Amino acid sequence: MSNHAILLIHCPDQPGLVAQVTEFVHKNRGNILNLDQHVDRLAGRFFMRIEWDLDGFLIPVDKIDDYFGTLIGQAHGMNWQLHLTRRRPRMVLFVSKASHCLYDLLQRHGTGEFDCEIPAIISNHEQLRYIAERFDIPFHYVPVTQATKAEQEQRTTILLRELGADFIVLARYMQILSDDFCAQWPHRIINIHHSFLPAFKGARPYHSAFERGVKLIGATSHYVTADLDEGPIIAQAVEPVSHHDAIDDLKRIGKDVEKRVLARAVYLQLRHLILPYGNRTIIFS
Amino acid sequence: MSNHAILLIHCPDQPGLVAQVTEFVHKNRGNILNLDQHVDRLAGRFFMRIEWDLDGFLIPVDKIDDYFGTLIGQAHGMNWQLHLTRRRPRMVLFVSKASHCLYDLLQRHGTGEFDCEIPAIISNHEQLRYIAERFDIPFHYVPVTQATKAEQEQRTTILLRELGADFIVLARYMQILSDDFCAQWPHRIINIHHSFLPAFKGARPYHSAFERGVKLIGATSHYVTADLDEGPIIAQAVEPVSHHDAIDDLKRIGKDVEKRVLARAVYLQLRHLILPYGNRTIIFS
Amino acid sequence: MSNHAILLIHCPDQPGLVAQVTEFVHKNRGNILNLDQHVDRLAGRFFMRIEWDLDGFLIPVDKIDDYFGTLIGQAHGMNWQLHLTRRRPRMVLFVSKASHCLYDLLQRHGTGEFDCEIPAIISNHEQLRYIAERFDIPFHYVPVTQATKAEQEQRTTILLRELGADFIVLARYMQILSDDFCAQWPHRIINIHHSFLPAFKGARPYHSAFERGVKLIGATSHYVTADLDEGPIIAQAVEPVSHHDAIDDLKRIGKDVEKRVLARAVYLQLRHLILPYGNRTIIFS
Amino acid sequence: MSNHAILLIHCPDQPGLVAQVTEFVHKNRGNILNLDQHVDRLAGRFFMRIEWDLDGFLIPVDKIDDYFGTLIGQAHGMNWQLHLTRRRPRMVLFVSKASHCLYDLLQRHGTGEFDCEIPAIISNHEQLRYIAERFDIPFHYVPVTQATKAEQEQRTTILLRELGADFIVLARYMQILSDDFCAQWPHRIINIHHSFLPAFKGARPYHSAFERGVKLIGATSHYVTADLDEGPIIAQAVEPVSHHDAIDDLKRIGKDVEKRVLARAVYLQLRHLILPYGNRTIIFS
Repeated sequence: MSNHAILLIHCPDQPGLVAQVTEFVHKNRGNILNLDQHVDRLAGRFFMRIEWDLDGFLIPVDKIDDYFGTLIGQAHGMNWQLHLTRRRPRMVLFVSKASHCLYDLLQRHGTGEFDCEIPAIISNHEQLRYIAERFDIPFHYVPVTQATKAEQEQRTTILLRELGADFIVLARYMQILSDDFCAQWPHRIINIHHSFLPAFKGARPYHSAFERGVKLIGATSHYVTADLDEGPIIAQAVEPVSHHDAIDDLKRIGKDVEKRVLARAVYLQLRHLILPYGNRTIIFS
Repeated sequence: MSNHAILLIHCPDQPGLVAQVTEFVHKNRGNILNLDQHVDRLAGRFFMRIEWDLDGFLIPVDKIDDYFGTLIGQAHGMNWQLHLTRRRPRMVLFVSKASHCLYDLLQRHGTGEFDCEIPAIISNHEQLRYIAERFDIPFHYVPVTQATKAEQEQRTTILLRELGADFIVLARYMQILSDDFCAQWPHRIINIHHSFLPAFKGARPYHSAFERGVKLIGATSHYVTADLDEGPIIAQAVEPVSHHDAIDDLKRIGKDVEKRVLARAVYLQLRHLILPYGNRTIIFS
Repeated sequence: MSNHAILLIHCPDQPGLVAQVTEFVHKNRGNILNLDQHVDRLAGRFFMRIEWDLDGFLIPVDKIDDYFGTLIGQAHGMNWQLHLTRRRPRMVLFVSKASHCLYDLLQRHGTGEFDCEIPAIISNHEQLRYIAERFDIPFHYVPVTQATKAEQEQRTTILLRELGADFIVLARYMQILSDDFCAQWPHRIINIHHSFLPAFKGARPYHSAFERGVKLIGATSHYVTADLDEGPIIAQAVEPVSHHDAIDDLKRIGKDVEKRVLARAVYLQLRHLILPYGNRTIIFS
Repeated sequence: MSNHAILLIHCPDQPGLVAQVTEFVHKNRGNILNLDQHVDRLAGRFFMRIEWDLDGFLIPVDKIDDYFGTLIGQAHGMNWQLHLTRRRPRMVLFVSKASHCLYDLLQRHGTGEFDCEIPAIISNHEQLRYIAERFDIPFHYVPVTQATKAEQEQRTTILLRELGADFIVLARYMQILSDDFCAQWPHRIINIHHSFLPAFKGARPYHSAFERGVKLIGATSHYVTADLDEGPIIAQAVEPVSHHDAIDDLKRIGKDVEKRVLARAVYLQLRHLILPYGNRTIIFS
């Protein structure tokens, strides 16, 4: 297991930011492994991701955040997050009835592609319990009705706390989460929408794509915000389709795109390569 | 130059259609070069493209349409078009100020990729006249204002008739054509829209794409109908973009996609590979 | 379950072939569902795939092959195969230690994407037995050494016969099959090679790709012939890579391409959409 | 016109490199606009590209290289190049008979996509002179035979010196350059090869691709070295093909890929985004 620190930073652009941050790492004997920075000139905003080896680093791990803030962050109006790679993140999956994304994520986890824990799968249906059992992952059935929604979200919130969840992946979870729930997990709920957003928002996008006669269909992974299908986009991909493809074919082809795009978002999240800002994301990869 | 006939057919689906059409060609000593058919089961609609060599074909060229209608087409409620490859189609280009699509089409024409005549370029601005001159193609300046629009469209209509135009390509022509004008050229005006429709309809799609933070940008070629950006889609493509790309980069990258997608539509049109039906297209390729 | 017949035909090109085949189907009250034909002008060769509904077809199912041969096939020197969709094909998977393709195929089978039986998984290692067990599919461990190879292939041949195998998929099976074995399963063994053939044949293609500094890596599914990595190609795909990607990243990215390309080949095989000819394939899709 | 400095650096990896380079820029009042660095752990090699604004920079432009070397570069065994954006690079095009890449580059130059001078087009044939004339660019006819090759390369070398050429683009130039000539322009000759290297090296790659029955065709832009088709790869792309595509179709489709891939390489070269190392390239984009 690696022992790295990763800092994700954004702040108003100003001269000398890169020099100061790199010097902070260097003076304290951290070896920089990756550094990527970006300036949005239009917005006058600076973005940076820096990863360094903690072996021999002079500042104790639990003080890094504090020192960085005091020495650099606060003075420059920085917004920063510190991540340590020696702690495996805990990812909870929400599913409904469609199995393809769930299977795909579990398979990638099983083959070592995702370096994380999956403490539980939560579903509003019982259908996919057998898959959870095949992969020896606890399955929680939390049925939702219009009437019980608020109560069930509370129950889910408690469960997530018990599970020590770091973030949530909606692997074709077909319930709309309340604004309150979304607000508790800012940039920590990843959804897969089965269209190339902003085209075909909402329900039944493959039907709409068929109707419109598009020549490519797509999928979009994004962070969930209170605005349905409007959160910051993490990844997108498309596949060509033709008149040969009926709606069922679009669904079949689309499943593959969904799996790929969701897996990419999860990978980026686990490697702390995503820096959301406003309604956009900087992807450091 | 080839001497082929191409029939594009659609009608209600019914048994025996392929057999009858192929027998019509075969009995009259036509050698079938390509045959492609498609059934839209949902709509119960049959679509076919058949291309055959006219050398030795028993029916005189100017009677084929008539014979086919009498012997087969009318009995089955067919909607058909006959095309003869020995006549080079005449394509007229409409442009405004952006040169990339115009250059690209002229270059492809110049290198023999497009088997057609380009009798003229029509523009509401003078800026691109020098390109027309470089390629020795007549350039017609037809300025348009809100007040003169109807009059100028009439003038254009007369010009197109004189030019013997078969179809029109809007190579980033930034005027909206009137419903009347569109109605005169059904499935004979091809437009390039600089977004992946139906996302980002209307003006300034790259700005909208930037705002939304999409990870792919695209272009769409489509037939023009009275409904702006809503006509049948012919071809679409996308390219990945990232946070590195400012709006000017999106425009730069987008230009390439636009050129490619428009060129593809023109190629398909010239080879009679497009069969529009309702708001969709069957692409026989 | 559908009740269709599919004929795959190739023969020297000659006038009237499409008309005769379609008439054969039509006169016997078969409704043509799909028809695709292709002529390789260079080789003077005709290729066709025709699918029709057997409900109400006048010729008994077990006589179709015979009648077609007598009435049409033999007279034109045709090479043809008849497939009936009401019989589910039996696909046997060969694996070694890498799990990603196996998982992917089983998941697609489990979600209904592949309409076939998987009577067994055969492996020269024990490592992936647990996956077979998770999916309730019999697992046969057939270890191979240089000394036992011939004997084990015989054992495998008997096993395949008992299983009623129609075709074999090498889902990252790392043994080279003998010429004799290959010859018994012409166009019935599908392999996935982890490079964009013909680049990087043989072992360790990701290492070679890294060394050469390519900007795209790929995968190729192909029929297995006695010539290693030289059989007819069924499907290929690529993904972009960059200097950020070390060999392990190429492997990770490559796994996704492999899964996709192998799944596509299996899908095409199950739908009888592949017509191999010489060292090439016609893909009717 | 921008007034930036760009440093491309590589050297053995060691702690503190990023900090020192950024501090060099920062202390001398340069505002860092872009910074990208990469470490090849296998090779233990550090790579960096840094771009900063020269307005207000304390070190005079003609001393930057010297100061950087003395203060940082030499001490760390760095290999570096300094580029200044206020000087427009001079790109000379070599062509033979195929016009598509030439047209494409000139069109991009004409629409402002390439920020450079094109002082001349050099060709071993007269065929494309008319295109040079259309774009008002001097055309030099330098015929080559086996016997005159050495002499003509000398003549070309003198011409290039007179033209003040910074780099050369072989836009489908069909002569093999001598080792001597290549050695004079290290990483300053860009070629487009019409295949996905290392597949189909050498002549007639589309014929070979057709023979092998590949499902994708590609193009590769690379720096030219004495080893034909073996130089460091800059960019690659592919397009799908099928059995519908005869060799002429492969050529037609391939032309588009060639244009795109060559234009990408030129763009990267002009922006100083390519850092070659050994037989690979780091692309900072």
